[in-house]
Amino acid sequence: MEENKRTDVNTLGEFGLILHLTKDFNSVNRSTIKAIGDDSAVIDIDNDRAMCISTDMLVEGIHFDLIYTPLKHLGYKSVVVNLSDICAMNAIPQHITVSIAISSKYSVEALDELYSGIKLACQLYNVDLVGGDTTSSPRGMTISVTAVGIAKKSEIAYRSGAKPGDIICATGDFGAAYIGLQVLEREKQLFLDNPDIKPELEEHSYAVSRFLKPEARLDAVQYFHQNDIIPTSMIDVSDGLASEVMHICKESGVGAYLEEGKVAINPEVEEQSIKFGINPIVAALNGGEDYELLFTVDPKDLEKIRFMPEIFIIGEITNPEDGIMLHTTGGHIHPLKAQGWVHFEN
Amino acid sequence: MEENKRTDVNTLGEFGLILHLTKDFNSVNRSTIKAIGDDSAVIDIDNDRAMCISTDMLVEGIHFDLIYTPLKHLGYKSVVVNLSDICAMNAIPQHITVSIAISSKYSVEALDELYSGIKLACQLYNVDLVGGDTTSSPRGMTISVTAVGIAKKSEIAYRSGAKPGDIICATGDFGAAYIGLQVLEREKQLFLDNPDIKPELEEHSYAVSRFLKPEARLDAVQYFHQNDIIPTSMIDVSDGLASEVMHICKESGVGAYLEEGKVAINPEVEEQSIKFGINPIVAALNGGEDYELLFTVDPKDLEKIRFMPEIFIIGEITNPEDGIMLHTTGGHIHPLKAQGWVHFEN
Repeated sequence: MEENKRTDVNTLGEFGLILHLTKDFNSVNRSTIKAIGDDSAVIDIDNDRAMCISTDMLVEGIHFDLIYTPLKHLGYKSVVVNLSDICAMNAIPQHITVSIAISSKYSVEALDELYSGIKLACQLYNVDLVGGDTTSSPRGMTISVTAVGIAKKSEIAYRSGAKPGDIICATGDFGAAYIGLQVLEREKQLFLDNPDIKPELEEHSYAVSRFLKPEARLDAVQYFHQNDIIPTSMIDVSDGLASEVMHICKESGVGAYLEEGKVAINPEVEEQSIKFGINPIVAALNGGEDYELLFTVDPKDLEKIRFMPEIFIIGEITNPEDGIMLHTTGGHIHPLKAQGWVHFEN
Repeated sequence: MEENKRTDVNTLGEFGLILHLTKDFNSVNRSTIKAIGDDSAVIDIDNDRAMCISTDMLVEGIHFDLIYTPLKHLGYKSVVVNLSDICAMNAIPQHITVSIAISSKYSVEALDELYSGIKLACQLYNVDLVGGDTTSSPRGMTISVTAVGIAKKSEIAYRSGAKPGDIICATGDFGAAYIGLQVLEREKQLFLDNPDIKPELEEHSYAVSRFLKPEARLDAVQYFHQNDIIPTSMIDVSDGLASEVMHICKESGVGAYLEEGKVAINPEVEEQSIKFGINPIVAALNGGEDYELLFTVDPKDLEKIRFMPEIFIIGEITNPEDGIMLHTTGGHIHPLKAQGWVHFEN
């Protein structure tokens, strides 16, 4: 460490910081197929199969606000966001560990609520809670979940496999979680201004539920397996669709041509977005936490993909020199910009 | 959740709380060999082998104090304590993930120090850093490490396998980390009272280094493998030797007869302990964070164990009705009491 030098972590950004901190780490075990840099690590286990491992940390006051996040939803979501990472490798999640650090303000009953959500997620996704750690914290709550899944090595979908000509697909609709968060933040402000006001969340239930209770697209992974589809690349959409398209393009060394009009937006979310003064397509492209899957397939798989439920073909992979372009509904073509959710700001 | 009921988490204790929160979780995957309740989870991977997974969370102000903990040591220790859990299964650690939540008071240079310790541990123990998460925190630092190791299923040492007649063994000496912590806390107090005073840590270097830079006993696991020894039970000593003996007895349904005089204590630590007014054997039995291995072997393996470096035969497993007894150096025999490190107190 050089004396007196102090570089603020925010100057590097989250991805830059991870890259900086881990750049000198070299893998020594032959079983390490993929270390840092994809949705999960990939570890060789036998001739045929590999294990995928992913981990996420959720911090009170950064990733969640308990004023509007029920503890059961928090427990559910903290599991699901990790399962989503395993699904993004085209792997089947099977095990999780959950560690929590909590201050003494949390009662056993509050933790029971949290764990009821964790249990619900385990039951719905058929994963086993196999370990964890429970400790105290001077303030607030931190949750760290690690998810483990299994996949055939030949079927794993990395971010790096997209080729020019591949079709870009996305499951589900986008921007809802972001708009849901705006609704919750607005109701929180109203509540803080006047604690007697009851929050009006019912009319925004789709957007709010997408934020509070996201789902991992295990159904898509199962569809791939049942229909012999191997996505050439895949990533889950946690930071925003535009940002994830860029990750795939960067890791695959390709360009992309995205059709703005093909990105699905829920009508209720569209309306709500406009009320907030946010262009719905901006919310869809840059809002995060949708936990849908963005993937590419070889054109030969087009017919198989067409019949997939909730699937949207949103563009095509191009040559790297073509850049990453957005074809807007207004008919313009311009470079895609990503303004993903950056938690690294306070 | 019942209305109005509020049970303080401290009423259950750490182990009681984990048990309470996870009691209704049932494993559904056939690959889950062991879920919660040992040093690590055990997951079936093929006919021959299993994967062990363990995770620990370290919280600033609870598990570490940066006034006297160099960040490089903290990084090293946060990895080692997890590798120790994998070693306690008689498994070889191979992979880790590291997640950190940090407030903006930490600079990139500070994190470089932390990661230099993580890297050193990876290099010395031949483990690969394969993933993690880096996020911000409103205050302080939280580190969550998950370690993954591999073992032959037939060689895994659970806490539950000890049988009456088995020999109780421990690697290394005990109580040093606890005394090291007392030295550091004393120097911290002197420093806070008068910041011009330089800490006098040199003369207590063994105890202090045992606290700040513990090692995982991978050497013991390698010795077992090379000499065809399978411990009938094993646990790593993080909460205190007495507490760990009780864990093995409880999980194995056996009693134990422990020879106080056979528990190794470093002479420097013994002297220092007396200066602090702490009975050295109390420090050795109840001080935590030694990260040595406590294990039992069948008497047929006695000759093989005798030649193991730094090994101490400290007692014998007895029938459950005999209880867990301590034979003191004064010639008395009384029930062993455990007062492990309880972090769950603030």
